[in-house]
Order: sequence, then C-alpha cells, then structure tokens
Amino acid sequence: MTLAASLAPGAETPHAPSKQKSSVSRVSSIDTLVTAGWVVTMDGSDRVFSPGAVAISKGGIVAVGTPSELLSVYSPKQKISRPHSVVLPGLINTHTHAAMSLFRGIADDLPLMEWLTRFIFPAEGKNVSPAFVKAGTTLACLEMIRGGTTTFADMYYFESDVAEAVDACGLRAVLGETWLDFPVPDHKDLAESITVTRAFLEKWKGHPRVVAAVAPHAPYTNAKESLLAARDLALEFKAPLLIHLSETKDEQKQIAEKHGMTPTKWLESIGFLGPSVLAAHGVWLDADDIRLLAERHVGLAHNPESNMKLASGIAPVVAARKAGIAVGLGTDGVAGSNNDHDMWEAMDFAGKLAKVSSGDPTVLPARDLLRMATIEAARAMKLDDRIGSLETGKRADLVAVDLSGPRTQPLWDVFSTLVYAVKQEDVCLTMVEGRVLWDGRTVRTVDAAKTLCEAEEWRSRIAASLKGTIAK
Amino acid sequence: MTLAASLAPGAETPHAPSKQKSSVSRVSSIDTLVTAGWVVTMDGSDRVFSPGAVAISKGGIVAVGTPSELLSVYSPKQKISRPHSVVLPGLINTHTHAAMSLFRGIADDLPLMEWLTRFIFPAEGKNVSPAFVKAGTTLACLEMIRGGTTTFADMYYFESDVAEAVDACGLRAVLGETWLDFPVPDHKDLAESITVTRAFLEKWKGHPRVVAAVAPHAPYTNAKESLLAARDLALEFKAPLLIHLSETKDEQKQIAEKHGMTPTKWLESIGFLGPSVLAAHGVWLDADDIRLLAERHVGLAHNPESNMKLASGIAPVVAARKAGIAVGLGTDGVAGSNNDHDMWEAMDFAGKLAKVSSGDPTVLPARDLLRMATIEAARAMKLDDRIGSLETGKRADLVAVDLSGPRTQPLWDVFSTLVYAVKQEDVCLTMVEGRVLWDGRTVRTVDAAKTLCEAEEWRSRIAASLKGTIAK
Repeated sequence: MTLAASLAPGAETPHAPSKQKSSVSRVSSIDTLVTAGWVVTMDGSDRVFSPGAVAISKGGIVAVGTPSELLSVYSPKQKISRPHSVVLPGLINTHTHAAMSLFRGIADDLPLMEWLTRFIFPAEGKNVSPAFVKAGTTLACLEMIRGGTTTFADMYYFESDVAEAVDACGLRAVLGETWLDFPVPDHKDLAESITVTRAFLEKWKGHPRVVAAVAPHAPYTNAKESLLAARDLALEFKAPLLIHLSETKDEQKQIAEKHGMTPTKWLESIGFLGPSVLAAHGVWLDADDIRLLAERHVGLAHNPESNMKLASGIAPVVAARKAGIAVGLGTDGVAGSNNDHDMWEAMDFAGKLAKVSSGDPTVLPARDLLRMATIEAARAMKLDDRIGSLETGKRADLVAVDLSGPRTQPLWDVFSTLVYAVKQEDVCLTMVEGRVLWDGRTVRTVDAAKTLCEAEEWRSRIAASLKGTIAK
Repeated sequence: MTLAASLAPGAETPHAPSKQKSSVSRVSSIDTLVTAGWVVTMDGSDRVFSPGAVAISKGGIVAVGTPSELLSVYSPKQKISRPHSVVLPGLINTHTHAAMSLFRGIADDLPLMEWLTRFIFPAEGKNVSPAFVKAGTTLACLEMIRGGTTTFADMYYFESDVAEAVDACGLRAVLGETWLDFPVPDHKDLAESITVTRAFLEKWKGHPRVVAAVAPHAPYTNAKESLLAARDLALEFKAPLLIHLSETKDEQKQIAEKHGMTPTKWLESIGFLGPSVLAAHGVWLDADDIRLLAERHVGLAHNPESNMKLASGIAPVVAARKAGIAVGLGTDGVAGSNNDHDMWEAMDFAGKLAKVSSGDPTVLPARDLLRMATIEAARAMKLDDRIGSLETGKRADLVAVDLSGPRTQPLWDVFSTLVYAVKQEDVCLTMVEGRVLWDGRTVRTVDAAKTLCEAEEWRSRIAASLKGTIAK
C-alpha cells in the first residue's frame, strides 16, 4: 500500500485494512498500525510526519514515525489506513455538562438568571435522575465520538451513572459530582454530598478511562465549609477538583460584597487552590488572580462560545497563558450556553475572539489553538502524562480527519486547515486506548438509533413536565 | 407517504421520490412538490409549516403550505421528500471573493498589510487568470452548494469568467468586477476598467441567475473619479454597486487625513451612495454614518469571522438594523479572512459576537440571525422581490437540513437549532430556480473529483510561482 504524502483529491478514502504483511525479520508484533497522509504529534516540538504512522499495543502508543520506519520494526495485527487524512491527538473538552444535551435549545438568547430560573431549574428539578443522565450523557458521547473528542471534563449530578454511560461508550472523562449549598437531585445537604461522592470516588478508583472528581459548583454558590470539604475529599482520593470561577461580573460583585476580594483571592485565602483544581471560565480574572492561579498550578477551562452567547465577557486567555497557566478549551453545556459539543468550533471561536478583542491578528495562532484543544488541555487537567499528544508511552487516544473535501482543499497549511476549516463531519476515525469507537461509518460503541429515540422520548417527557410552567 | 410532524430519530431519511399520485380532480399540474418535517418560510410573519410543503413550477414557487393542502390542489410531476428535515430559503452570502478559495490557508494569523503584501499580492500577480478564477470559483461553488448557500455576492477579477463558472454550477450570484486605482489582472487603468466592465454588463444582461455588477474596491483605494465612473456605469445598467466600506481603523484614518471626514460621509459628499450600493464590513461606522446609509437605502454585508480573524473590529450591526439598514451576513474570502464559505458559522459568529460585545445575551436572537442569512440579505442586495423567503411568486431557491443527527437532537426549537447547532454537512438538498444542485448524495452540477484535482494542481503551480518569495 502506498501512502500519499499529498492528497489525491476526489478519490475515495480506503477504509479496509491492508492485506500486506511485513516480512522483515526481528520485528516486534503490535496490535495496530495507523497510517495517514499526515501525523500531527503535538509533542514538545510539534513534529509532523507526512506520511506518518502510529504503532499501538495494549491501548498505548509504542512508536510514532513514518510508515516505512515503523513497518521495518513492527508487525501489526491490524492496519488502519487513512491516506487522505491527518491523524492527531483526540480532542479534549475541558468543560461540559454532558447530560444537559437533553435540554439542547430549550431556551436561547436569554439573560443567564432568566434562563436558569424559568427553564433550567424547573426542568432539572422535575426530570434529573439516573436514567436522565445516562440518556443525556450517551447522546453527548455519541456526538463527541462522531466529532473527534476523546476526553471530556464533566460537572453534573448522578456522576456515577454518567460514568457508566462514559464507560460503555469507551470515551475518557474526568467526572465531577457537583455540590451546591442547596439540595441537588442526588444529595440534599453537605453530609449527604460527602457520602455520595465518597462512594463514587471509591467505586471508580483505578479505572483506566474514568477519573472520578469532586465539583463544588462555584465560589458564589458554595460556602467555605463545602469548598474545604470538597478539597479534602479530593486530596484524600488524589482526585481532581472542578469548579466554575469568575464566570460573570455579577459573581465578582457578590464575592466582593461578601468577602471584600475577588473569587480567586478568596479561594486562595481559604486554602482551596492547588494543582488538582480545574477552573472553568475565568472571564473576570485580574492580573493578581492570574499570577495566583499560575503559582498554584491551577488549570483553566476556556469556553469562548458560552462566554459569548451568555454575554458573560471575554476571558484574558492570552495573559493567562503568558503567565504559564495551562489553558484548555471547552464547550460548556449545550442548553443555552452553547448548542453542541464541537471542539473544532471551540478552537475557531477562541482564536477569532482573542484576535478581535486584542486588536492583534497574530495572537493565538492556529498551532496554539490546536495545543489548547490537545496537549495544553491535558496539562490543565493534569492528564498530560497519559494523553494530549502522540508520543511513545502515552495512551492511544487519536482521531483522523479527512481533508479531501471542497472545504479543506487545497491544503496550504495543515494546522490552519485543522483549526479554521475542519468541521466535526470531517472526522473519520476516533480511537481511545487503542480501541476504534468511530470508524468513519459507524459509532461502534453506541446504538445511535436507540440513543436518538430515547432523546426524543425525554424531550416529550420534559415538555409534559413543564406544561403550564413555560411557554414551550 | 406520511410526513412526520416530529422526528423519528435514528431512522434513515428516505431520499427516493414518492410513487403516490394524487387522484383529486381539478388539480393543477406542477413540476415539483418538496415536502418536509418543517417548512420555515422567513416570510413577513415567520410562518412555519410542520409538516410543510412547497409547490414549484418553472423555477418559481407556486404555493407554500401543508402537504395535504397542496396535494389537494396540485399534481406534481416530481416529489421530493425530506421528512426528517427542515426546508428553508437558500442561504445568501453577501460578501465573498470566491476564486480566492485556491489560497485557502496560504497565510493565517498575520496583520492585514503583511498578509496582503507578502502573500496575496505576489500570489495574485503571478497567477490570477481566467482559468484561475474558473477553478477557484468552481471550488467555492462546490462548497457552497454542498453547504446550503444558493446566492452569493462576489468581488474579484475576470468576473465574466466567474459568471461562466457560476452559471455552469447553477447557483445565483451578484458578481462585481473589481476596480482599483492601480493595474489589476484584467484591466490596467480606468478607461480599460470601464471598457471591460461594460462588456461584462452587456454580456450577462437579463440572465436569470447571474447579476453583473460594478465593484470599486474601497474609498481608500479608489479616487473620486473611478468611484463616480463606477456609479454611472452601474446606474446606466441598473446594476448593483459593490464596495468595501470602513473595514479597518486605518481606513478611517487615511480618509480623515485625505478628506477630513468618515469614508461614508465622503462617499455621500461625492454622490456615490444610493439603493444600488451593497457595502461590505462597515466596522467603524459612527451614528451619523449609520443614519446616512439608512437614508440612502444602502445594504450592508456583515462579515463577523473576517472582522474577528483580521482583528478589524466589531461592526455596529444592532444599531445599523435598528436604524433600518438591511444587514446581510457574509463570509468574506477564504484566504486569511476566513477559511471557508460556511454561512451556518456566519450566523453563529454574528450572534455570539453581538451578544458578548454588547453585554446583552438577548440581542440578535436566532430568528434575526436566520433573517440576516436569508430575507434580510436579499433586501440588502435588492433581490428580495425574487429570493430570501419561501413565498408564492418568488424563485424556488431552497435548502433542506436534516435534523436527525446527535448534534441536533432532541429538537426544542427549530430556529435555535438551525442557527446554533446545524453545520454544512446537515444540508441534504440544495435547489436553485427549482433545479436540484445537491440531492444529499451528489452535487449534480459540478464534477467534484475534477474540481478538487484542479485545486491541487493550482496549489502546486502557485507554490512554484512563489518559490523564493515566501517561506511556504
């Protein structure tokens, strides 16, 4: 089989594995060899192999190089060829509320508080259950697998049920059981929050793909007591600590009135900040906040589409990255804050928003944006020892993107095309831990028809539950 | 055949026309009946039929209503059914440089002047020819047809060759032959610009889909003499007048230094402004400029992605619409300013940009954004007597969008899903003048393989021509 270094546009992408066997002696047997027109590694020196190949065994990356190099050393049991595609690390979505997929578009173009109190809180109060989060999370996973996202960070309720859905779909995720200082669907007070979350952390300890986490909602919704209890539980289990931080101007005002300082400084003053923290949004961070978060090795999840759609503001991501903070990209939930889990769009929005708001078209160039959706997102989540780049020793989480269509041709620059022109539908292979979840034709781990059917059933159930409450 | 009022998720969309014949007497024979889960008309009262149908004869819309209503009156020769889809007016891209598709991603993340002088001008100087514009325009048309755009406004060179490509593809377009006060590839001075453009206007007079136009580039690149000559030629032929206006701060400065006023006021002072003018960008318009453009019935083409990516600024579109200006959306060219011709993204970016920049999440709600990509774009281009909405008497330019995938389910609101979740790939039917250009499987009017092959040939020819000049 020949691998095209450049595209042969218009030709069909061959999806059948090659029949060719390597006859070189002293070769090691491996599970899978993925070959492609390009392999974009996102390693320390942004190496690109064209053509490129990734050798995979036992779910991990054994080697990355050119196809001829790797074929001279490895004998793969399975070969996956994508000659018109670029293979890159699977995208990492650092902030979601996956189960809320069932509320996609339930109410848009509204102020945050009206959206929450008129639509989301009533809808959640009447519907959120283990079955709800499983249906919603599976729908989200179906979309993410299809669109090239291999890892996501989640904050919601019944996260042990969310974990079951994620496990069944084959994705990787950091799942944060969310605490608020008022009753939530699966725990009613702090004592119960601790009990439920402890059981969740125990249950998923050591899982190869699911990382259980603690997620106190935000500085304005959680008091010192629950924040510190969450921190202690996270430290005990070496678990991540997910939180919303400085999302709106109103949050800044509330915390200033209550504690006389910014949310970040208040979290620091109570001893909450540390490397296990992944903070979402950070829209209203000031220079001192940024310095503090960098010092404490807090990761940041930047959600440009949500911040724009809800008119929350523009996060100072260029300054945050300059200060050394690892900034990953996220979509946020798809009910109001966004309407899909599209990480390609997250890159596109993050770049264009940074350029127009700074007046400088050179900030956040395509390579940096791709970093923020891969290796830098992994750093923000403290998972960069395992994922985020295609390097020997990391887990085999990767995607292939077909570049042979009219929207991505001709190809002048692979980074710029990936960031500014590729859409979810161009993804033709999604692999996690060496396992193919999407092969370009079928999502192998999710029953798509059943998932979509259940989503529609939930929509009509939710609509019935809200009858009389809302106009929809 | 039954038409699902709500989705039957997961089922395959049947693409074969129905075999059913209407047996009702006294029915009129029509060419085509398009039926769908929803028909979003974008008429004066934003009527939505669910299920809905559009009756078409001789390229025009005969009636819009429910399938049962229309089938009781019309007997169609051809039935096109899209039960899982919404049918809406074809999208209208009010500002492109279609042929520049061949430069997609040639140089990104650069300041405008560096991008122009180091990459675009050398690349254009050495390559732009009738064959170049035909290849580039056909590539752009292939993308637009596939993605649901049925009309676009173009500014480039060799527009009569562009027109031939557009005509062959079956799209509708307003094509502006571009004048600059320095030699361009197809005319070297004002006298030649007039001769070439007059011949172009003569040649395409009365064409049902191609509207030939005159396009003086911008107030900072064209002197009073060429602007007025362009205006007079446009008036003589009742042709549109396309121009870039107030795109950058630098343009404001240049015109202020030269004429002591804003570009808009200067154009008004020389008598350039009138209803035939379609002005692109309008980023730096002040309140007086907006009032003036509204008074003169000038249409505005808003290009949020280009303005963000080049850090040009944020156009005051909410104020412009409030003043009564018809504001259409555009992508701009795909070499640097954008990287694709995706009008779904143009809506999404326009909405989110307006919300974050105003601090108000309620501005430009989904319906308004869809208007700006359909009926309001048609108004901006003075084509609203023919296109922009699905109403009796208009031309049959429409698209169908499949909503049965995981990114668009469940469906709470058809407008919000169309604007915030749909992508190009969801388009499963594109029709112009009653003719199917894209049927969900094949673009019928363009040889895709040949077009993509030619694009790659042009890329390698352009790269060779630039060897030594640029680093690529």
